[in-house]
Amino acid sequence: MIEWKNLDTLDAYKKLSGLKDEVELKSVMAGANGAKRVAEYSVPMSNGMAYNFAAKQVDDQVLDVLSELAEEAQLSDKFKALYNGEVINTGEKRLVLHQLTRGQLGDDVTADGVNKREFYVRQQERIAAFADKVHAGEIVNEAGEKFTSVVQIGIGGSDLGPRAMYLALENWAKVNNTFKMEAHFISNVDPDDAAAVLSGVDVAHSIFILVSKSGTTLETLTNESFVKDALKKQGLDASKHMIAVTSETSPLAKSSDYLDAFFMDDYIGGRYSSTSSVGGAVLSLAFGPDIFARFLQGAAAEDQLAKNTDIKKNPAMMDALIGVYERNVLGFGTTAVLPYSQGLSRFPAHLQQMDMESNGKSVNRFGEKVDYVTGPVIFGEPGTNGQHSFYQLLHQGTDIIPLQFVGFKKSQMATDVVIENSTSQQKLCANVVAQIMAFACGKDDENANKYFAGNRPSSIIVGDQLTPETLGALLAHFENKVMFQGFLWNVNSFDQEGVQLGKVLAKKVLAKDMEDALLAYANLLDI
Amino acid sequence: MIEWKNLDTLDAYKKLSGLKDEVELKSVMAGANGAKRVAEYSVPMSNGMAYNFAAKQVDDQVLDVLSELAEEAQLSDKFKALYNGEVINTGEKRLVLHQLTRGQLGDDVTADGVNKREFYVRQQERIAAFADKVHAGEIVNEAGEKFTSVVQIGIGGSDLGPRAMYLALENWAKVNNTFKMEAHFISNVDPDDAAAVLSGVDVAHSIFILVSKSGTTLETLTNESFVKDALKKQGLDASKHMIAVTSETSPLAKSSDYLDAFFMDDYIGGRYSSTSSVGGAVLSLAFGPDIFARFLQGAAAEDQLAKNTDIKKNPAMMDALIGVYERNVLGFGTTAVLPYSQGLSRFPAHLQQMDMESNGKSVNRFGEKVDYVTGPVIFGEPGTNGQHSFYQLLHQGTDIIPLQFVGFKKSQMATDVVIENSTSQQKLCANVVAQIMAFACGKDDENANKYFAGNRPSSIIVGDQLTPETLGALLAHFENKVMFQGFLWNVNSFDQEGVQLGKVLAKKVLAKDMEDALLAYANLLDI
Repeated sequence: MIEWKNLDTLDAYKKLSGLKDEVELKSVMAGANGAKRVAEYSVPMSNGMAYNFAAKQVDDQVLDVLSELAEEAQLSDKFKALYNGEVINTGEKRLVLHQLTRGQLGDDVTADGVNKREFYVRQQERIAAFADKVHAGEIVNEAGEKFTSVVQIGIGGSDLGPRAMYLALENWAKVNNTFKMEAHFISNVDPDDAAAVLSGVDVAHSIFILVSKSGTTLETLTNESFVKDALKKQGLDASKHMIAVTSETSPLAKSSDYLDAFFMDDYIGGRYSSTSSVGGAVLSLAFGPDIFARFLQGAAAEDQLAKNTDIKKNPAMMDALIGVYERNVLGFGTTAVLPYSQGLSRFPAHLQQMDMESNGKSVNRFGEKVDYVTGPVIFGEPGTNGQHSFYQLLHQGTDIIPLQFVGFKKSQMATDVVIENSTSQQKLCANVVAQIMAFACGKDDENANKYFAGNRPSSIIVGDQLTPETLGALLAHFENKVMFQGFLWNVNSFDQEGVQLGKVLAKKVLAKDMEDALLAYANLLDI
Repeated sequence: MIEWKNLDTLDAYKKLSGLKDEVELKSVMAGANGAKRVAEYSVPMSNGMAYNFAAKQVDDQVLDVLSELAEEAQLSDKFKALYNGEVINTGEKRLVLHQLTRGQLGDDVTADGVNKREFYVRQQERIAAFADKVHAGEIVNEAGEKFTSVVQIGIGGSDLGPRAMYLALENWAKVNNTFKMEAHFISNVDPDDAAAVLSGVDVAHSIFILVSKSGTTLETLTNESFVKDALKKQGLDASKHMIAVTSETSPLAKSSDYLDAFFMDDYIGGRYSSTSSVGGAVLSLAFGPDIFARFLQGAAAEDQLAKNTDIKKNPAMMDALIGVYERNVLGFGTTAVLPYSQGLSRFPAHLQQMDMESNGKSVNRFGEKVDYVTGPVIFGEPGTNGQHSFYQLLHQGTDIIPLQFVGFKKSQMATDVVIENSTSQQKLCANVVAQIMAFACGKDDENANKYFAGNRPSSIIVGDQLTPETLGALLAHFENKVMFQGFLWNVNSFDQEGVQLGKVLAKKVLAKDMEDALLAYANLLDI
């Protein structure tokens, strides 16, 4: 029997709250004990990866209580309920099925009269067949020529995730000869976004993907018109250049305006849609369906680990629990995500949405205000770039910011140079390792300006190389981490009521239905 | 006589600390009073812009104390000392002269035996002459052909600022027929960064700019070798394809490895170098020297306003004071920068460095630990994209995040569509206006899930259009804001000792001079 309880009502949480300042990283990470922690404080992930939390402010005592907390909060049972098809998104009264787009974790799930796993697989197969035909020159533009680029039109989850995944695999695909066509993305309602993208692509040889679950997202429909205008200006029939990714019930689903339509449904939140048709169409067109399938396999393997009830075998659950300890007990309000991999340049922006939109809530699942803090601010840039930017504050600022590093042994493109006896890849890896220790142990110095207090916690996810599989695993890890944290905070991680008010007011402004301050602001901007 | 005192020793600050929860935005922004605030709580900026702080939690009483604080902290005197050439960067014993790259605010400043304003102007003239020759086909590649792209090799301040400025003007330049050549940037030591950029440019027709003040930055020298390898592989002479931007005393300054070298000096911090030769070379090559000159004029005009002693006439000082009030009295730890302009897509990343690297310090100018918080975390993405991402947390999360909006009346490219009776640009502007009011006033709802508490403070900088001038003004505004905040916190905003420890440890790793945890981590990554 699952009970949805607030975090601060749990005995284990009360116990955890008493465990503050237990672990001085400076001491525990020094000497042989530090090496021992690196060896032991590691949870295996799928696809040869590992989540290492040696440099987090935890010890065996804290871990024991985190384990009790996981049990008392029924994290595994709640996950099980989710993947077996319970209505976990209570606000919108919806199932939460993104894991089902990449594998079957439990029972068959039936909704809307169909087996949902079969539905998602069928969409993947339809997309694969479509992409294969585009690549084979069987689906062509009006002039009978092959399409050479794909342009996704979408915003939020229809943009950030697919874009981050595309950038993560673009160069890998090029060197592995699976690169089929360039992808571009139009998202912002700012007309300069669409105008710039369109001026940089060969419109006549582009296939456009319109992504909107409801078929009513203002930005996306506006940008669709923008694109249609551009096609018309070149004398082209937009319906021969455009496909839709939408829900079966949306006005876009059966429209003759599109070459074809591929479906998602209400059980896939936008920010969790990279493994659904939303990511599937653009990634299959860009890299081929096989690569997209490998990406799904990587995610599915990682999902399996999230079923483990032992936190030492469940990397996402461990990560989630440590995060809640840092947020609610140690009091840290922000987390930095720092991938040492240029391919992951927009991965932090995607996590920013996934995490902040899911758990940036003040009410619990029952709509009652909670008395503790929930989701933190997430930000990040790739290392080593960040080292020459905001790391100053991370090292010597007055606030402590927990850090989430990601690193890979091998580069993606395998082009490298040896300077001062090391390759660039070795320098990259040396830097991430050095940073972890610098943050943990700091450095004494008589000159306070050169003094590093240390005790700044970090974890690292290590992998062999950023590939479709490891990318899928990385994505699933963070999705599941955010899910477990939502369970702990007892919030509904799958709705986003906080985005509504702005939309309503924007409509008022456009309808000139405004007064007082709103009108005064509108006048400032000549609306 | 200037006295450098800690913030918490100032009488005005003590008074300010008593002014908490004075202003309920929900009430003061409602009705006619809200419109009055929008009209009155505005500081004119240069180039037709304005800094509007109506939706900040201040009232006349708070503003009076902020004004006292500005006076007691001697903000204007300190700025004067800075631009007249005092050693403001006490840690490194250096003058701080970035404002001098764009205008003369006070006395002549002589250092290293030369008039520094003349030195900076001479570099600009040399760059302009060089760029003109490149554009005219007088400086050409080995085959006698015109260069068609420029690639900047630099990291941190040699990358983020120039890149953000380039992106901000790229599309504007294209529609205004001042676009000369594409710019690309290589920064990360990750070999995939250089490899990807080089695979996407026409190397034989590219001119590379190596940017390193000291001529010793590891990432940059490594990437230089990377580029030289690529040139050699095409049978090209690297010295015919590369210029340097460096200090006159660096090993790069007189090297025959470069077509030419342009200079900066120790008085320009990397994160303040966009208006120096560091930004000058790439922006003049990309857009022409006239556009770079207009960018400098915009910044110079804004610098003039920073001299005003009246905070109501000094937008940067007002912004700085309100920020310190929010950080130290109201207790907000993070600030989001949200430009409603796709051209400013990387402007938040630049501000992140500028702000966090400048003021992320725990010791004052004398190397004594301070007992108050200093620089906040800065993050942001362009609107409306962010609305479909992390705004959920901003609206309904448990922490309050102050917001800094930027908006322009006109788009840059002037290509637009009318959908539902409004252009995309009108929708964009309607959205930013709506967001300000939604954050300030919130919305009552019986369903707590749809309830918005409001009282979430924001400011907006409004301009006519993002042009070279307004971009320069925007940049100068934030540089000067960060400077004034550094004065208030009594920190040295112009050094960055916090980045050193990581460098030292990375060298140890590469030299295999490591043990214990460092070695264990290195083994994880196969170094």
